[in-house]
Amino acid sequence: MDSFSTETLADPVALTRALVDIESVSGDEQRITDTVERALRSAPHLSVQRDGNVLCARTELGRERRVVLAGHLDTVPIADNLPSRVDGDVMHGCGTSDMKSGDALALHLAVTLPAPRHDVTYLFYDCEEVEAERNGLSRISRTRPDWLAADFAILLEGTYGEVEAGCQGTMRARLTATGVRAHSARSWLGSNAIHAAGEALDRLRGYQPRTVVIDGCEYREGLNAVRIAGGIAGNIVPDECVVEVNFRFAPDRTEADAHAHVREVFAGLPLKVEITDSAPGALPGLSEPAAADFLAAIGTRPRGKFGWTDVARFASIGVPALNYGPGDPNVAHARDERVEIPLIRSGAEALRRWLA
Amino acid sequence: MDSFSTETLADPVALTRALVDIESVSGDEQRITDTVERALRSAPHLSVQRDGNVLCARTELGRERRVVLAGHLDTVPIADNLPSRVDGDVMHGCGTSDMKSGDALALHLAVTLPAPRHDVTYLFYDCEEVEAERNGLSRISRTRPDWLAADFAILLEGTYGEVEAGCQGTMRARLTATGVRAHSARSWLGSNAIHAAGEALDRLRGYQPRTVVIDGCEYREGLNAVRIAGGIAGNIVPDECVVEVNFRFAPDRTEADAHAHVREVFAGLPLKVEITDSAPGALPGLSEPAAADFLAAIGTRPRGKFGWTDVARFASIGVPALNYGPGDPNVAHARDERVEIPLIRSGAEALRRWLA
Repeated sequence: MDSFSTETLADPVALTRALVDIESVSGDEQRITDTVERALRSAPHLSVQRDGNVLCARTELGRERRVVLAGHLDTVPIADNLPSRVDGDVMHGCGTSDMKSGDALALHLAVTLPAPRHDVTYLFYDCEEVEAERNGLSRISRTRPDWLAADFAILLEGTYGEVEAGCQGTMRARLTATGVRAHSARSWLGSNAIHAAGEALDRLRGYQPRTVVIDGCEYREGLNAVRIAGGIAGNIVPDECVVEVNFRFAPDRTEADAHAHVREVFAGLPLKVEITDSAPGALPGLSEPAAADFLAAIGTRPRGKFGWTDVARFASIGVPALNYGPGDPNVAHARDERVEIPLIRSGAEALRRWLA
Repeated sequence: MDSFSTETLADPVALTRALVDIESVSGDEQRITDTVERALRSAPHLSVQRDGNVLCARTELGRERRVVLAGHLDTVPIADNLPSRVDGDVMHGCGTSDMKSGDALALHLAVTLPAPRHDVTYLFYDCEEVEAERNGLSRISRTRPDWLAADFAILLEGTYGEVEAGCQGTMRARLTATGVRAHSARSWLGSNAIHAAGEALDRLRGYQPRTVVIDGCEYREGLNAVRIAGGIAGNIVPDECVVEVNFRFAPDRTEADAHAHVREVFAGLPLKVEITDSAPGALPGLSEPAAADFLAAIGTRPRGKFGWTDVARFASIGVPALNYGPGDPNVAHARDERVEIPLIRSGAEALRRWLA
C-alpha cells in the first residue's frame, strides 16, 4: 500500500515526483486515487468524499467565499518516460507537466494549509485524457454538482506559471473511406479504400488553421489526424479505411459551428464523416470579479489557453474558472515531457500567498 | 472428429462443400488437415506422410513419370461468408474459389483413382495466404524436397477452368513516415506522421501499372496499400504511421528489380522503405515437354497467371508447373467468393481423362 510521508507532503517538488512515479494512464487510476485519498484523510481539517476515482476534500470554515482547486490524476500512455528523473532544475517523466505538478500543489496545500482565507474544495479526478464521456469531472458535474459549486475555480493544468484564460473547444470526427475488396493480384477488380483516404490526408496537409484574438487573448486552432487504420490481410485490397481527426477550435465557435466546419473541410470527398466526441470551449470571462481578484493576487497578465481543459465544465455551470499551473503545455504528451522545478516552488508560494 | 463419407469423397461438388464448411483461416488448419488425412489414409493404394499441417500422399506404381497435384488448405479471414450456400449452379462461401474446389479435385482423385497412368503425388499444405516464410510448401521444399520431386506439377489454384501459365511475383514493403509527437491542442509544435503518409498514398493513387506479354501470356501488375496504421491517442499528434504495400510484378522482373522499382516509386518522400516479404514470379515455361503433354490432354489454350502461386516454388527447383482449377480468381478473397459447380465437375472429368 503506497502512502506519502509527511516530508513528501510538505515539499511540492518531492510530492510531484512521488505522484509521477505512480503510473496512472487513463482507466488505470485506482492506485493513485487510493494513495491521494489516504493523504487527504490524514488531514483532520478536511472533509473527504470519494465517488469512483473522483475525490472531493473540503474545508468547512464558514468563509464568505469558496474556491476550487482541481486537477486530473490520469496521464496519456507512457512513452518510455517513467520512472521520473531529475536533471538539475528539470524533472522529466510522463505526467510531470500534465498535470501531476499541478496536482501536487493542490494536495500539498490541502494537507498543509488548515485555515485558508477562503473555504477551499480540492477536486482530483480521472479520465481527462480520453473521450469526454469518460471524464470523471464531467460525471460528477451531473451526479454531484454540489462538489463543483464555488465562487471561482482554478484548474491546475500546466500553464508554465502563467494565468491562462478560457480554453479552446475540441471535437473528434471519424472519416470512413470505403472501397471494394479484391485480391491484390487483381487489384483492378477492387477499389482501394486506403488510397481513397489519402485525399482526406491531402486536405489535412493543406489546411490553414485560424488564429483569433478574444479579450486580448490569442487562440490558435488546429486540425489533425490522430489515428488511421485500414487493411485486412497482406494480399487484399481493403474496402475500408478509417481516419480519426481532432479539431481544436477557438471559443468564438460553438460546437455546432465546429462540426459544420469539419464537414466543410472534407466536403466533396467520397467519405462518411461522423462526429464522435465534442466539448465546447470557454470564453476568457476575465471581467468576472472573482477572476479579477485572483489575477490581482497573482500579478501576472493572462493569455489564451490553447488546450481544452475542464475550465469549460465550470464555465458551463456558471463558475468562473482559470488555468494556472507549473507544467509546460508545450511538452504535454511529448516523449520528453518535463517540468521546471522552480515553477513548482513559485506556484506553491503564489497560491499560499493568495490563500493564507 | 470430422470425416468425409464415401459418398462425399466420390462427389467432388459435395466434397468441395464439406471442405469449405471446415473453417481453416491461415494458422488454424489443424482440423481440416486431420480430416483430409483420415480420408487419404482410408485409401489402401496411397502412401501417406504428414509433417505439421502438410500432407503428402503418393501412389507407388513404378510408372515412368510422376506428377504432382497440389493445393493449400487455408483461406483468408472469413467475411460473413460461411457456412457455404448453394444457389442454383453456384456455391458461395469463403474458400470456394481459393481453393477448396481445387483441393476437392485432388482429394477426390486421390481416393477414387487407384491406378493412374502416371504416379501421382497429392500435396496439401498450410499458410499460403500469409507471409511467404510461413508457407507450408516452402517449408517442405527445404526440409523434405523429395516430396516435391516430379516431372510435372499442377497447382489447383482457381483459374476458372483455364490453364494458366507461370505466375506473377509478389513483394511487400513497409513504409514508415515519422514525425514529432505533440499534444493536438498545440499541433504546430509537432509534425503529423499520418499527414506525411498521405504523400505515399498520393503516389499510389497516381501509379500506372504495367501490362507485359510473355510467350503469348499477358501479365498485369499492381501496387497497393494493404494496411495502414498510425496514432497513439485521440489528443496526440502521432509521430509514426506505417503503410504496408503489396507489389504484384510480371515474371520478366526479378525480385531485385521489383524491390528497386518500389523504392523508385516512393523516392524523394520522407519515408523509410523496408522490404518485408518477397517471392519471385515464374516464367510460363510452356516449351517444357511435360507441360505440353498436359496441355494436349486438356485441350485449352494457356494464359498468364496474375496471382502469385506456388508454381514459383516448383519452378525454382526445376519442376515445370501450371495452374489449373475450377475456382474463379476474380472473386478470390472477395466477400462474395463463389465457384461455379459445373466447373468443378468438368475439372474432375478432365483430370480423370488425363490420368486414367
